[in-house]
Amino acid sequence: MLTGKHLVFVGGDARQLEVIAYVTENDASATLIGFTQAKRTFADTQLGELAENVFAAADALVLPVAGMENDGRVDTQFDADPIMLTEAHFQAMRPGTFVFTGIARRVLTEWCERYSLNLVKLMELDEVAILNSIPTAEGAIAIAMQETEITLHGANVVVVGFGRCGQTLAHKLRAMGANVRVCARYQPELARIREQSMAPFAMKDIDHAMHDADIVFNTVPAPVLSAAVLRSMPRDAVIIDIASKPGGTDFRYAERRGMKAILTPSLPGLVAPKTAGRIIAVSLTRILANADEEEAQHEEEDLWT
Amino acid sequence: MLTGKHLVFVGGDARQLEVIAYVTENDASATLIGFTQAKRTFADTQLGELAENVFAAADALVLPVAGMENDGRVDTQFDADPIMLTEAHFQAMRPGTFVFTGIARRVLTEWCERYSLNLVKLMELDEVAILNSIPTAEGAIAIAMQETEITLHGANVVVVGFGRCGQTLAHKLRAMGANVRVCARYQPELARIREQSMAPFAMKDIDHAMHDADIVFNTVPAPVLSAAVLRSMPRDAVIIDIASKPGGTDFRYAERRGMKAILTPSLPGLVAPKTAGRIIAVSLTRILANADEEEAQHEEEDLWT
Repeated sequence: MLTGKHLVFVGGDARQLEVIAYVTENDASATLIGFTQAKRTFADTQLGELAENVFAAADALVLPVAGMENDGRVDTQFDADPIMLTEAHFQAMRPGTFVFTGIARRVLTEWCERYSLNLVKLMELDEVAILNSIPTAEGAIAIAMQETEITLHGANVVVVGFGRCGQTLAHKLRAMGANVRVCARYQPELARIREQSMAPFAMKDIDHAMHDADIVFNTVPAPVLSAAVLRSMPRDAVIIDIASKPGGTDFRYAERRGMKAILTPSLPGLVAPKTAGRIIAVSLTRILANADEEEAQHEEEDLWT
Repeated sequence: MLTGKHLVFVGGDARQLEVIAYVTENDASATLIGFTQAKRTFADTQLGELAENVFAAADALVLPVAGMENDGRVDTQFDADPIMLTEAHFQAMRPGTFVFTGIARRVLTEWCERYSLNLVKLMELDEVAILNSIPTAEGAIAIAMQETEITLHGANVVVVGFGRCGQTLAHKLRAMGANVRVCARYQPELARIREQSMAPFAMKDIDHAMHDADIVFNTVPAPVLSAAVLRSMPRDAVIIDIASKPGGTDFRYAERRGMKAILTPSLPGLVAPKTAGRIIAVSLTRILANADEEEAQHEEEDLWT
């Protein structure tokens, strides 16, 4: 529970509405900045101004997954204009105040350090990233179903990378009845792939996995699907690249060879904003609630020492 | 192999191109009517006219999945106009000639009987319908991913019906990590559902399965999702009705209650025309090739008696 906590939300998309709903269900109060056009209503919340006293009263500032640009801009789906934060807003917050964001650019990191704010980059937490890989995988699978003329069932699919997203994607593809091969760099990964009844290929042999591939999913944010690798694939193979921009595919060469290659946008907020928001909300709430318990524990320890 | 066989294809969609490719790979020759705008080319095929001698030379006539309307119309995606068959075309065919179609309306059935043609309704064959349920299920799952704000993983889904499509859909949903409940009519089905680690509900208790459903898939072509059943669902549950038209949902009431309910079109040709075409091609080829073997066997028997 977050009884007595006050959170300030600045901007965001449909996911943030789920976070607001969850924290207010957990008894927190909230001030919402950049939400004038949001249609949902929540208990114990108010629309707020970009004023220093609002920030001074916060136990936590909650930014969107994309965080704050280096010029202070925070995007919102629920207002005509983006919100412009300044250093003064951060200076106004009490030291130790939590600042939740998905990712943090340079200036956000600097301002949080300068004013001793407790910056939490949610998308870098393993627990969040692993759960987030589920909507990512489902989104990639939905795209594969739309963009190919075949079923996943019985298709030869290759997953490049066996990290958080690669594992989830490989498991779900295998569950759908696809013939799954996975390319990974390290021997323990290759052993784990084999243990899970999929076909492992070392990254250096990536082209060996490709000659009869129907669909190739890339999860590695490095140029792994080079022109040479693309050339080893059937021309009608479809490439779905879910690695962060600019992806790991030589898109120029793919186009030149007439291959369909798709760089997907960030999928969780797109295909399952409610689930993706809930994932963020649960971790954020746990961190904020635990901080209290830890503090209480320290106080108790203080009491007896 | 279909060596020496000559097939006449009349109309169709992308699936039919797969059938043409498959039978010609199996050494058949073919005449194509209604394919002037098809971009693919095939070995040993020619574009043909709607002339009686073309039909007289056929070992098999291949109609599209939708078959022939009662006025003789056959739709094609690869010509500006539909093709108009007449009784004379059927009269011209040799008795015993195969006529393959997906489904058969009244007049097609009558003409085939009148001229002793061997009508095969492919979509009524269990082997075809079971395999066809795979692209159907994948299509329904893709729609569910698009039309909801949550992941299938962890979602409460209800599958109504445990026939050919219901089974496939339930298996794939469970494989994707959903909590699957299945409504079925008969006790052996309910036992099989339980055996497969899903939650069974008798059709008469269908509303008991619904109170916390996130997504409901209907596969039963009867009014099972009545207003009363819809009223037992959460208002934000999404209904995906894959039963043949008009589906099994009270769409009027669903709209009145503000619920999202989708009657899907025929999914296999839409989401996986290549796989769906291959399913048809394999069965068609097997039937046509077996007929020969059976005939040869009869001839051999004739030889020795």
